[in-house]
Amino acid sequence: MGKYALGLDYGTLSVRALLIDSQTGEEIASSACEYAHGVMEKELPTGKKLPSGFALQDPRDYMEGLILTVKEVMSKTQIPPEEIIGIGIDFTASTILPVKADKTPLCYIPDFQDEPHAYVKLWKHHGGEEEANIIAKTIEERGEDWISRYGGKVSSETMLPKIFETLRHAPAVYEEADRFIEAMDWLIWNLTGEETRSACCTGYKAYYHHETGYPSKDFLKALDPGMENLIEEKMDAPIKAVGERAGYLTETMAKTLGLQPGTPVGTGIIDGHSSILGCGVGKPGTMVMILGTSAAHFFLSETELQIPGSAGAIKDGVIKGYFGCEAGQSCVGDHFAWFVKTLVPESYEIEAREKGISVHQLLVEKLEGYKAGQSGLIALDWFNGVRSPLMDFNLNGMILGMNLLTKPEEIYLALIEATAYGTRMIIDSFEKEGVSVDSIILCGGIPLKNRMLVQVYSDICKKEIRISESSNASAMGAAILGVAAAEAEVSGYKDASEATEKLGKTGKMVYRPNPENTVIYDNLYEEYKILHKYFGTGMNDVMKRLNAIRDMQK
Amino acid sequence: MGKYALGLDYGTLSVRALLIDSQTGEEIASSACEYAHGVMEKELPTGKKLPSGFALQDPRDYMEGLILTVKEVMSKTQIPPEEIIGIGIDFTASTILPVKADKTPLCYIPDFQDEPHAYVKLWKHHGGEEEANIIAKTIEERGEDWISRYGGKVSSETMLPKIFETLRHAPAVYEEADRFIEAMDWLIWNLTGEETRSACCTGYKAYYHHETGYPSKDFLKALDPGMENLIEEKMDAPIKAVGERAGYLTETMAKTLGLQPGTPVGTGIIDGHSSILGCGVGKPGTMVMILGTSAAHFFLSETELQIPGSAGAIKDGVIKGYFGCEAGQSCVGDHFAWFVKTLVPESYEIEAREKGISVHQLLVEKLEGYKAGQSGLIALDWFNGVRSPLMDFNLNGMILGMNLLTKPEEIYLALIEATAYGTRMIIDSFEKEGVSVDSIILCGGIPLKNRMLVQVYSDICKKEIRISESSNASAMGAAILGVAAAEAEVSGYKDASEATEKLGKTGKMVYRPNPENTVIYDNLYEEYKILHKYFGTGMNDVMKRLNAIRDMQK
Repeated sequence: MGKYALGLDYGTLSVRALLIDSQTGEEIASSACEYAHGVMEKELPTGKKLPSGFALQDPRDYMEGLILTVKEVMSKTQIPPEEIIGIGIDFTASTILPVKADKTPLCYIPDFQDEPHAYVKLWKHHGGEEEANIIAKTIEERGEDWISRYGGKVSSETMLPKIFETLRHAPAVYEEADRFIEAMDWLIWNLTGEETRSACCTGYKAYYHHETGYPSKDFLKALDPGMENLIEEKMDAPIKAVGERAGYLTETMAKTLGLQPGTPVGTGIIDGHSSILGCGVGKPGTMVMILGTSAAHFFLSETELQIPGSAGAIKDGVIKGYFGCEAGQSCVGDHFAWFVKTLVPESYEIEAREKGISVHQLLVEKLEGYKAGQSGLIALDWFNGVRSPLMDFNLNGMILGMNLLTKPEEIYLALIEATAYGTRMIIDSFEKEGVSVDSIILCGGIPLKNRMLVQVYSDICKKEIRISESSNASAMGAAILGVAAAEAEVSGYKDASEATEKLGKTGKMVYRPNPENTVIYDNLYEEYKILHKYFGTGMNDVMKRLNAIRDMQK
Repeated sequence: MGKYALGLDYGTLSVRALLIDSQTGEEIASSACEYAHGVMEKELPTGKKLPSGFALQDPRDYMEGLILTVKEVMSKTQIPPEEIIGIGIDFTASTILPVKADKTPLCYIPDFQDEPHAYVKLWKHHGGEEEANIIAKTIEERGEDWISRYGGKVSSETMLPKIFETLRHAPAVYEEADRFIEAMDWLIWNLTGEETRSACCTGYKAYYHHETGYPSKDFLKALDPGMENLIEEKMDAPIKAVGERAGYLTETMAKTLGLQPGTPVGTGIIDGHSSILGCGVGKPGTMVMILGTSAAHFFLSETELQIPGSAGAIKDGVIKGYFGCEAGQSCVGDHFAWFVKTLVPESYEIEAREKGISVHQLLVEKLEGYKAGQSGLIALDWFNGVRSPLMDFNLNGMILGMNLLTKPEEIYLALIEATAYGTRMIIDSFEKEGVSVDSIILCGGIPLKNRMLVQVYSDICKKEIRISESSNASAMGAAILGVAAAEAEVSGYKDASEATEKLGKTGKMVYRPNPENTVIYDNLYEEYKILHKYFGTGMNDVMKRLNAIRDMQK
């Protein structure tokens, strides 16, 4: 008898079900389904127009996608339902909705179907910018120190500004909502019949701390008297560690999905964080870096680290038994894309077309054989501000060292190097806290497309780097949480950490630092740090002054 | 009876004769002739190959060009020779040749026709790099302080390295040469029959000072015992102020040229410096800036100024009675050309072609209506090192303030602004020495083609700017020196200064600072100065360290 697990990966536009062999990690089958309503940014299904900054979803899409994809995977593989030992889920966050006590979304109720705030507010819903500012101001006035765990900033993408926005703009919805809940927790409630909350979302997105809890009643009252009892009345529920079982599949849902009732269901995890598990990192020592338009860095730690500019170290937030640490760089792929779009000359475009390759590939070709430091350039990768370690979005990019012979590919390389110096600074800050980063795993599209970049990162960070092999590390992470949801006797793994280390897809191809380059890059990194300090920490606030003039003149 | 003057403008590739009305300044006629041998960089006319860095000319071309152009102008206009009241000359420098005591160039002697060092070494002949280094080292060892008048640097483009190179590489030429002479002085010797030297060349190019004279015998001996008597044996001759008469046309030359014997001939001037006079600047108060690939700034002063990084204040070197001060920026047009060639995207190239305009023009169009500081960018214009005021060629460019919305035209503007800040620094250093710059005249191709740049310069430097109207300010300057060579009773001008102020072509169209922009630019200039100091004066020598790594890795 086989033992399989199902992972459900809820992204921004679609859900994917992945079925894996729980003993080998083999990906047996998968099925994806786009949300019928996608992201609602302009109007509701009723035709009601939405203000700018809105990004809503319809929870029906989650349920339909669930049923369609699970059924398809089961039907494709013809695996008997009893061989599914567990189900795991990752989801975007903070993606929240107001529901009744029986878990009915408010937007299902006819009275509210024309009310935007009754729908799901997707992670990138920015309607609560004003509320985020009020929260930030109140935090400052009251000297609430817990915000330092979140880099000192209140993002409108977190849960509280979204709920506060509802209170201020749709008080009837706030009133009518018995619960405000993350979509992943709502989905698991549907699957198991029990309301739980994932430690991942409560920690990263709802300001919950494993010792001190949620923000205080006093604080919430200071925001608005109507918010005073938000936690106890509309949010409080058992918080489960990631890697722990949330419950068991109900009869009804089992029937709907064609699965066995009582199948274990794991606690949910945020999609980005799920990649860590998908890459096979279930213990401290390896940093997982998701490299896209921006970059997120994840690291597990035995102790609660205080990393400057990080999004906090959350207990059980990535995997049970460890603190999940997260840092970020605001501008990585965006940076290269800007350069290629804005500053690459016609002759290069033509050459790339003639060769049938992308401009990125052409630039990489032209850099073949380049040695570290050969261009004489250095850059600051601040084109979109700085997340870790400075948490300052009022900073800008800089390129230095050009002469009349400087070529486009050299600037491109300098921008890549700059992001790698930025990554090394983040690793340095982890290591300064006493945890060593032994190696790096890169996920996302960029590492697969640009191997030169991976080598530069290895040379600059002086770490071995593997590229994640899984085509969808998040879904693999979810499936692993499905395995972990099963009893140890069934799964054969003593805990989630073991299952992850065994099943996750650590890349096989290893990039090792080139010793000749690391010597040079050590020197250049010192230069980067000097410039970082000079322009980023108040020694010369020219960027901020230029921004102020720019904003005034626009 | 009319009163006319002839100006002879000897450039790098051709000579132009310009005939003007000495009373109105009207340009009556001109004629140009390219040098038959052009610049000899690869081989001599005999087929003898030349080492790299060589740039030679054949003095026959100067004489042939003289005869052809003067005759053509006279024949075109049918002006009687007696109505030519004087002849003036500008020439490239230091452009020198070895000649016999009877002024015969050594390269005319059959024994030397296959000997590169017997020909004219053009200003841009760099064969004496090694000798320039030896001279610099000897200056340093002996603590010769006169070099500070030349920004502390020995350029291989000056006279002494060229002669020293001849001594070391062609001792027979050095031995056989009775005189080493600037081509302009040799030409005037041909015209007048008397050997004189222009204060312009001796001062700017041969390290002569009006009080202390040439470098000492001891110094020359320290370079090489064979050089000890160079000055007294091979160079000493009466030094004439610019604006003074050098002599009168000989019978022979008058016959050859179809002119009147005894026609006054003015002292020569370097071609760049001649533009100052051509622009009508014969007194202190107005800075003339020649804007091409690089920029040269000229200013007349009553006193001997010590401008950091300037090429010295030379008494009578630009016009009799004043010190001629010269400063420079290494990278202006080069800077913009590099950007347009290297970093402008295909879509812009296509748009420019569709509109039938240059990419420069397209960028200017896109900047229409831009306000100062709107881009949020600032740059350092050091892509080719820094001449004034730092005199440091081991520095590089920098651009700061970019974000993901930054457009190519904004970077283009930042580069233009950077060169304008550089100009303002030079003006500041003039004014710090107690002379005020009341207005600026721009010469060269760039101001005519890019009026936006002129306005930016006006806004940043906070000066009125005129663009020189003359199509050839150097030739006009030479013609004015022809007027000045005549007796005051004949010309009607008491001195060269008066003739220049009356006849030179000061542009009529005036660009005035836009008060709204100057306020912003005052702030941005402060930022420029902070960055200039930080990166240029040892506070952070990152550019030098990057250059050292680059040179090692190449």
